[in-house]
Amino acid sequence: MKNLIIASTSTLHTGGYLEYLLPELLVHFKNVKTLLFIPYARPSGISHEEYTSKVSEAFAKINITVKGIHEFESLTEAIKNAEAIFTGGGNTFLLVSQLYRYNLMTLLTETLKNGTPYLGTSAGSNITGLTMQTTNDMPIIYPPSFQTLGMIPFNLNPHYLDPDLNSKHMGETRETRIKEFHQFNSLPVLGLREGSWLDVKGNKITLKGDLSARLFKQNQNPEELETGSDLSFLK
Amino acid sequence: MKNLIIASTSTLHTGGYLEYLLPELLVHFKNVKTLLFIPYARPSGISHEEYTSKVSEAFAKINITVKGIHEFESLTEAIKNAEAIFTGGGNTFLLVSQLYRYNLMTLLTETLKNGTPYLGTSAGSNITGLTMQTTNDMPIIYPPSFQTLGMIPFNLNPHYLDPDLNSKHMGETRETRIKEFHQFNSLPVLGLREGSWLDVKGNKITLKGDLSARLFKQNQNPEELETGSDLSFLK
Repeated sequence: MKNLIIASTSTLHTGGYLEYLLPELLVHFKNVKTLLFIPYARPSGISHEEYTSKVSEAFAKINITVKGIHEFESLTEAIKNAEAIFTGGGNTFLLVSQLYRYNLMTLLTETLKNGTPYLGTSAGSNITGLTMQTTNDMPIIYPPSFQTLGMIPFNLNPHYLDPDLNSKHMGETRETRIKEFHQFNSLPVLGLREGSWLDVKGNKITLKGDLSARLFKQNQNPEELETGSDLSFLK
Repeated sequence: MKNLIIASTSTLHTGGYLEYLLPELLVHFKNVKTLLFIPYARPSGISHEEYTSKVSEAFAKINITVKGIHEFESLTEAIKNAEAIFTGGGNTFLLVSQLYRYNLMTLLTETLKNGTPYLGTSAGSNITGLTMQTTNDMPIIYPPSFQTLGMIPFNLNPHYLDPDLNSKHMGETRETRIKEFHQFNSLPVLGLREGSWLDVKGNKITLKGDLSARLFKQNQNPEELETGSDLSFLK
């Protein structure tokens, strides 16, 4: 049975790394002693080692030891044997490229379907959708495909931002970009604001956190979904 | 001899479509009667026809007739015979996908090298760089390659935005994204603010408009280049 927390962001403006999620993670990762961390998205280009040590510090607060996947001889065994898995944020193009490069995409899908508890934040959440095509990231590297894990039957736009009505900037708003996506793709897209996350238990998907989320469907007006909403109806 | 205007944006907050550029275009497209327009980037997903008619309206003010490339039987002949070419903004992934799909990338490179006057705005400017990897757009479609026209020996980031120091949003700043690009790529990236453009005459590249531009080089601190700067030194 799938068991995932899919968060818009790792960090809120008001707090430290993963801080706002720790009470939830204490429940989600109950009985987990060691967590497998996938650092491939490398935010700001930091190394796998630096990233893993930052994550270790946060999880130490709930008595979980963290091991980076780059520390393992066999990446496949690392995933298969993991008690729990966390993929952190950074650049989604890089993350997806690395997962394909090491042939981990299919294995990760199967492992999560079989119930290994998972946490994703930002890029690590993006990859739980059907494709990475609604990422906000820059295409710094060319991945072999945009297909991702498909743990939820729609796509995500993490760090969702409402249009700034006072802005004088003429670049596209997030809503415009998602509208362009829907010219060519029929998948729903969920704009997940910072502080929101999805709780996935089997086929049940629940919106959590304090905020509403914005749902975009092809050829329809966007709608606001209140926190606590059951999103299992989405396809 | 190359003859290009490469603009950050088509439209300023204070004016109509292409309005701020018209005095410059009057000179750039002197003696041009008919302009070939490439509408493939389809901003907000508008059709080729709608986009072309919007562009026609703007160019009517300087007595230039506009024809969309989609109106031609032979796309190759359309480019070869064009008096001048304009590629408008929208989604860079879509634009690049279409140029590859119709085998136009190499032909366009050769045509511009031979001196056909060109105007690019936003996505249409992005493709004049070596690759499209510093676009701000959403990957709504998977292009066969990120390589672009290479009319300038570096990459562009159009609609460049300075970090908003008051923002509570935790998504990456533009500067962070470009820094991530430089973890894997050595090309310089020029952040071109809205209202700036590059004037390319042969190998001479001059920054124009009222604003400075921000230059990012691998492993170096970014620097501000004043308007009027000669950028021909960049490689």
